[in-house]
Formats: sequence, structure tokens, C-alpha cells
Amino acid sequence: MELDKALEELELLQKKMYAYNVASSAIYLDAVTVAPKDTAEGRGIALGILAGESQKVFTAPEVGELLEFLGQHREELCPIVSRQAEVLTREYKKMSLIPAEEYMEYAMLTNEADDVWHKAKEKSDFAMFAPLLEKIFAFNRKFASYYDSTKAPYDALLNEYERGISMEYLDAFFAAVKEKLVPLIHKISEAEQIENDFIYRHYPIEAQRKFSDYLMEVLGMDRSHSTIGETEHPFTLNFNNKDVRITTNYQEHNLVDSMYSVIHEGGHGLYELGISNDLQYTCLAGGVSMGVHESQSRFYENLIGRSRPFIEAIFPKMQEFFPEQLKDVTAEQMYLAVNRVEPSLIRTEADQVTYCLHVMIRYEIEKAVIGGELEVKDIPQEWNRLYKEYLGVDVPDDRHGCLQDSHWSGGMIGYFPSYALGSAYGVQMLRNMEADVDIWEAVSKGDLSVVTGWLKEKVHRYGGLLEPSEVIRNACGRFDPEIYTDYLVQKYSEIYNI
Amino acid sequence: MELDKALEELELLQKKMYAYNVASSAIYLDAVTVAPKDTAEGRGIALGILAGESQKVFTAPEVGELLEFLGQHREELCPIVSRQAEVLTREYKKMSLIPAEEYMEYAMLTNEADDVWHKAKEKSDFAMFAPLLEKIFAFNRKFASYYDSTKAPYDALLNEYERGISMEYLDAFFAAVKEKLVPLIHKISEAEQIENDFIYRHYPIEAQRKFSDYLMEVLGMDRSHSTIGETEHPFTLNFNNKDVRITTNYQEHNLVDSMYSVIHEGGHGLYELGISNDLQYTCLAGGVSMGVHESQSRFYENLIGRSRPFIEAIFPKMQEFFPEQLKDVTAEQMYLAVNRVEPSLIRTEADQVTYCLHVMIRYEIEKAVIGGELEVKDIPQEWNRLYKEYLGVDVPDDRHGCLQDSHWSGGMIGYFPSYALGSAYGVQMLRNMEADVDIWEAVSKGDLSVVTGWLKEKVHRYGGLLEPSEVIRNACGRFDPEIYTDYLVQKYSEIYNI
Repeated sequence: MELDKALEELELLQKKMYAYNVASSAIYLDAVTVAPKDTAEGRGIALGILAGESQKVFTAPEVGELLEFLGQHREELCPIVSRQAEVLTREYKKMSLIPAEEYMEYAMLTNEADDVWHKAKEKSDFAMFAPLLEKIFAFNRKFASYYDSTKAPYDALLNEYERGISMEYLDAFFAAVKEKLVPLIHKISEAEQIENDFIYRHYPIEAQRKFSDYLMEVLGMDRSHSTIGETEHPFTLNFNNKDVRITTNYQEHNLVDSMYSVIHEGGHGLYELGISNDLQYTCLAGGVSMGVHESQSRFYENLIGRSRPFIEAIFPKMQEFFPEQLKDVTAEQMYLAVNRVEPSLIRTEADQVTYCLHVMIRYEIEKAVIGGELEVKDIPQEWNRLYKEYLGVDVPDDRHGCLQDSHWSGGMIGYFPSYALGSAYGVQMLRNMEADVDIWEAVSKGDLSVVTGWLKEKVHRYGGLLEPSEVIRNACGRFDPEIYTDYLVQKYSEIYNI
Repeated sequence: MELDKALEELELLQKKMYAYNVASSAIYLDAVTVAPKDTAEGRGIALGILAGESQKVFTAPEVGELLEFLGQHREELCPIVSRQAEVLTREYKKMSLIPAEEYMEYAMLTNEADDVWHKAKEKSDFAMFAPLLEKIFAFNRKFASYYDSTKAPYDALLNEYERGISMEYLDAFFAAVKEKLVPLIHKISEAEQIENDFIYRHYPIEAQRKFSDYLMEVLGMDRSHSTIGETEHPFTLNFNNKDVRITTNYQEHNLVDSMYSVIHEGGHGLYELGISNDLQYTCLAGGVSMGVHESQSRFYENLIGRSRPFIEAIFPKMQEFFPEQLKDVTAEQMYLAVNRVEPSLIRTEADQVTYCLHVMIRYEIEKAVIGGELEVKDIPQEWNRLYKEYLGVDVPDDRHGCLQDSHWSGGMIGYFPSYALGSAYGVQMLRNMEADVDIWEAVSKGDLSVVTGWLKEKVHRYGGLLEPSEVIRNACGRFDPEIYTDYLVQKYSEIYNI
């Protein structure tokens, strides 16, 4: 084989994988936005076939030969192509180890599980979902050995979502979190609670849509390359760095729910929009890991969006969108309200302080089930016990408990910890950013370009060119959970006067 | 090869083609509804690759062997599978002749052309679009020889959209049309014109949306399997017989524009929804041809939707949706208004009588360009000349002239005539339907189930199981343009008292 020809083939292979991703993303996007209700069957057939076709393209023997050839010529490759070959080789080896039937069986299982989970959640009936979840955990235990048989199964799974992390890493992280945050939450619960009634006034959805458009503008989301839509669960979907979609969900009696989902998904979107052009249509396009992605979304959502300068900057505009609802409210009251801490049942609605404990509970349960110390059928009991222990809340039913998230039905075991890590990474980035530039001066004018510029430089543009751990090292320095917990203690001690 | 195995392979092959269709349809649907503006590049790459992949799957040598094997065992096949093998064999032979690179290049070209056409139309600048249109015509001339090198190029293209028709067939049809309709239009222009000012009052879009929902209900479109969306140009997209999307476009000062596009696209949708379950996910799912499809959409739009019983049935409801706007209007006035004949510039807004001449102009231009008698750059001039000659109107600019339709930018050369044929087929179906059942009694009560039942029985359920000419023969009898022109002369002589 000639190197030129090999490089051409490599480019085409990656474009093909990109095209199959675009296809399934477009079908998914349609399904969750406009598709009529009873259309799952035909869509399922199409998605199953396309997944099989895509896998067949990627696991073809010629691809193995191509990657081997490139591996032998690593010295001659430019850094980008060298990294592509490395990432694809890793993925190829993994995919080759998963038997095709198991892969398709798992795709069908998660498709069915998603359906059953929706119904089980509606009925608040975990027993209905349990048999499928058992199978999903069993598959993941098996997959873990394909991913990396030298690791403990849960470590192998964690590594899939955030390369380089392990139970050891997370145990230390969550221990630090628990040590600092549980007492903080305790102190807050004894302090005078913040008033936030005005958040639940009537906010017409049409006005909220316009407010979202304004937030997109403040975020600097280029509307010729991004849209905002509406779905039951907000998400970000990236076709490429010139085409990113975020979604939100409006509630007529909640001003901030959609507001922070727009800022959160906007953070994901900015990451994708900021990835370098020369990585597009390759395996290096797209954010490098879930943890780094969450570090960006939660950066905008919490570190910027829940900061005093940001609220002060946008509050006059908020009053323009909602003149009646906010006429008796000050910017300071709004700042306090969006930072109200209150242990609650639903992760996605949790405040900045308790959020991490929601994740920790999921981490402990996954670890125990994969480790064989907890049976799937006993998850609800354990879930409710941990919520009581860490957050002091009583879980009334599975719908508000262990059936609340879609991750397990989608087969994502080992994903949750990245949410918490992202929060911690973000704070370390903020500290480094503050040392480099005066961001708060710009933010207080509603200008996020300095923030996004720094993140683009340190994080976004690299896409998958660097390992997650390298991105974190560049942007954060050494990982130190204390920086994160100190930030929270400092911020919320001031807010709650404790 | 075993027959059982061959049948399994045939089923999988067709499901794959279905899946690739779903993929490109979903990407297209996204592009014309919610995609941000500057995203054509990434989408073009994906569509090009998927078209190539799909073609590769279909033109693989194994497919040729499979189809040959099935051809040898035709006697043992059930009628449905036998027809599948026949249709696929025909398509296989054709596709095998189109070089893969040309096919991909063409997919990318039409994607780009669509983008440029939009911009050119906005600027009313044909010269901007001309270089791409030249390439599209050149590709089509080349494709024509792949389709059927024994035919004249334009005949080969016509045959793609409506098997069995030819320039000879159409020349005769349009000659009959011209002979009867040009004098009719002339007489109408001398008669007293119908008053229709009330159609252009202010009709808020929100109320029009609700009116569309009502029309969907009257049409009997099952909303759990169909949706109505909004796009610049209305269309129907079918994923399968359980998932059909129609779109419309609302104008604040026009009541009937969207109304008739909903009924028209609804007719396409009903055809797709009425196709037999046992043809799904095969090459026989979907309407059999463009002409038959248009016979259905124009049946609902004109023969039902512009009939007196239908207007009388829905008018009270129209007054409910638009009480202020229609309080001084009667059902009879509405009936007359929606049947007003007036030579105009835009095909999609044309009345039932002049419509055919709009199509004829396009037919003559396509025929001349493909035949080498007209250069692409001279299209505007020729377009404007023919509009003056046949319809007596002056075309002020390309936007209202030869840039008005999306077909050419989408690569559809030879498609237009099917619109006119569909109108003629529809009238013949109506005559046969009237002989079988008393449809007007039901229609006058707003009940279209008898109409749809007849069409489902005679047309819809067959999908691609029969040739277009067989469907036409079954539903229409022998093709006779006089039945069509007689219908128009009779209907409009009564309306205009001539």
C-alpha cells in the first residue's frame, strides 16, 4: 500500500462514520421533536440497519489492514493523522472483540429498554423495568472485559466515558466532596432560606422563547450555525462544528428551568462550535469526553450563569421580557434565588451544591451492581436509603427515584460520574482563567467573548486531538477536588451568611 | 443458493434500501425545517456519502447474482416477491450503469444547487443559478443514456417519473389541452370576474394552523401516523405507511393558499398511508409514480376540495375559525372564489384551468434544453415568451419566472408533466367513482371516507405492486384527455355563465 492511498482511505473511512452519525442523529432529532407518536417501529428498523451497516464498514478487515499499515508508518504521519490512527485503532480493536450478534442484540435491548423505561417511569414501577436493566448490566459486565480485561469491570466502563479515570480516582474525589459538602449543606439548611417565589410566577412560553433567543445571543451562539428547539429533555446534538442544535423545555410557571438548560446546553454547543476546522469529518471532531463536555456546559450554567456579575448584566433585559412578573424584583434577589440550595429528589433540577451528591449516589449504586454487591432488584431500596442519608430527603416513588434518569435504559453505565467531574474541572479552569484575564469585567457587561475565547484556546479547539487527561492538565493543572469544594464553600457561605 | 436463503437476502436488501431512504429523508426534512442556515456543507458531505453507500449496497455483485437467481425461480415466487424481483432487477441494471463517482457527484451537486437556487431566487438572479443548472441538465442528459439508451434522452427521463409515457404521448395530451383550454380561458377572461377580495383579508397564522388541523381531520389523516409542518414549499414525505409528514406554508393575508396546499399534500399523504402493510420496507412501498401521486393529491385538492358540496360542508366551520373575516361571506361566494380563473405567474398558485398551461411551458422548456435546442442561459427569455403567449402575462423578474420552482435545483428533469397528467387521470377516476358510488352525498356532509375508500381500493393499496399504466387502467380505463377537458369546460362554463 502507498501512504498517499492509505491517507485517502483513512479520510474516506472517517467521512463514512461521520455520515452514519449524521443519519442516526437526524433520525433521532426528528423522533424527539416532530415525528408522530406511533412511528417507532419503522424508525427502529432503519436505525438498527444503519447501526449494522456502520459497524460493518468500520470493522471490515481492510480497515484493520489500513490501521496496521498506518501504525507501521507512524513516524511519517502528521500529528493529526497520527492521532486519528491511534484513536481508530483503539476503537477498532475494541469493536473487533465485540461479537456482531452481541452488538446488535444490545442495540435492540436498549431500544426496547428505552420504551419500557418510559412506561415504567410513568407508572412508577421499577419491577417492570428491572428485568431489562439486569440484562443491560450483564451486557456491560461482559463488554467491560472486551474493553479492557486487565481492569476491574467498572473501571473499564468508567474509562469508556472518561479515559483515564478509575474507581480509585473517583473514590478520592467523592470522599473530598462528601467531607466538605455534606457539612455545608447541613449549615445551609439551618440558615435562613432564600426567597424565590417570583421564579414560579406565570411566564408565558412565547416570552420565554424570546428570552432564550436573547440568551443564545449573550452566549455568542452563531445562529447561522446553531438552533434552539424544544424537547421533553433538553440536549445538544452536533452534526459538525458548523451545525449544532440545542433544545430546551419550557414550563409556564418556571422562569429559570429553561433559562439554565439553555445556558447549559449552550455550553455544550459552544464547545462543539469551537472545535478546529481541520478536525471536521474525522474521529477527532466532537468533544473529547463526557467529563470535559460537562465541564463546559456546567461552566456556563453555574460558574458564569449563576454568578453575580452575569445576573446583574442580564437582569435589566429579563425585566424587559417579563415586566409584570419581575417589576418588584431586584437583580440581587434574582442572584440569590438562582443560587438557592435545597436538597431535592431530581438530579436535573438540583442546585449547584447538592448536585454532586445526586451523582455520587448513582456512582455508588453502579459500582455496587457491577461489583456484584447489589442486585438490580434491590436498587430502589438502596437508592432511597442513600437519598435519605446524603440529602435527607424521602423518595416517595420510583418515578422520583431510581427511574428518573434515561441513562441506564440507554445502556450508559459509568456515565454519571462525568457530570460531577465536569463541575470540579470547571472550577479549576475558572481559577486559571481568572489568573490569565479579567473575565468579570467583561461578564458584568454581558460579554462572554473573553470567557469563550479562553475556553476555545485551552479546550474547545482540540476536539479529540488530545486525551481528556491532557486537556484537563492544560486547562486545570493538577486535578485537585479541594479547589472545587473551596469554591462552593466560599460562594455559598457568602450567599447564606454562614 | 437455496430459495429460502435468497428470500431472506432479498428482504434484508430491501430493508437496507429503506433504511438509507429514511436516513436521507430525515436529513432532508431537517434541512428544510429546522436546520440553521449555513449548514449545507456538512450535510452535503453526509448525503453524498450515504448515497454512495446505498448505491454500493444495491449494486454489489451479490445483488446481481441474487436477482438473477430469483429470475430463474420466478415460477416459485409469490406475486409480491416476483414483482419485487422484477422492479429491483430493472433498477439494478440501470444503477449498475451509473458510475458510483457520478452518482455521488450528482448528489453533492444538487445539494449545492438547492442552496444556490434559494439565494438566486431571493435575488431574482438566474445568472447566479445558471452554471449549476447547466451541470444538472448535463448530468441528466448523461443519465438518460444510462436509463435507456434506445430512447431519446428526454423520453428516458420522462419514463423515470412516469413509466410508459413519452414525448409523443405528452405532445398529444398537451395538444388536446391547448385546443380546449386556451379558448375556455379566453372566454372566461371576457366574462364577469368572480369577486374574491375576502380571501385576502387578515387571517392570523395561529388560526390558520388550527384550520389546518381541522382539514387534516376532514381528510381522515390519522395524526398518530402523520404530522403537518411548515416549510417554504409544501411537500409530502413518507417514511412508511405508518409515518407520513406533510408541510404547508402560511400567509397572513391569504386564506386559501395554505388551505389547498394542506388538501393537496393530504392527498399525497393518504395515498402513502393507504399502501398495504405487506409491501412495507420493500421496493414496492410508496406510491408507484409521480403521475399517479399527483392524480391523488389533485383529486383531493380540485375535484373534491374545489367542489360545491365540499365547500358547503366545511364553510360553517371556516366561519367558526374566522368569524370576523367571513361574516359577510356565503358558502356559494366561497365556492366561486376558490374557483376563480385568472392567468398568473406562479404555478403553485394557479387555478384549476390555467394550471395545465404552466406545466406545459415547463415541459416545452425541458424538452428543448435536453434536446439541445435551447441553452440554459436562454431559459428566462424563453420562459417569459411562453408565459406571454399561452397565459398572456408579463413576467416581471426571474423570481416570479423561471426561478420559482425547486424541481430543477433538486435535479428533477422530466417531473413536471406528471402534474398535468395527474389532473387528467384524476378526472377519469372521478367519473368511474361516481358510477360506482354516490360520493357527493357523503362529501356534502364533510365525510371523505367513501372517496378515500374507493381510491384505497383502486389505487392506494397497490403501492408499486402494479405498473403505473396498470393502476391507471384499473382506475381510469383508457386514457382520454377529452374527459378531463370536458370536465373543465363543463364546470367552468357553469361557474362563469358562459
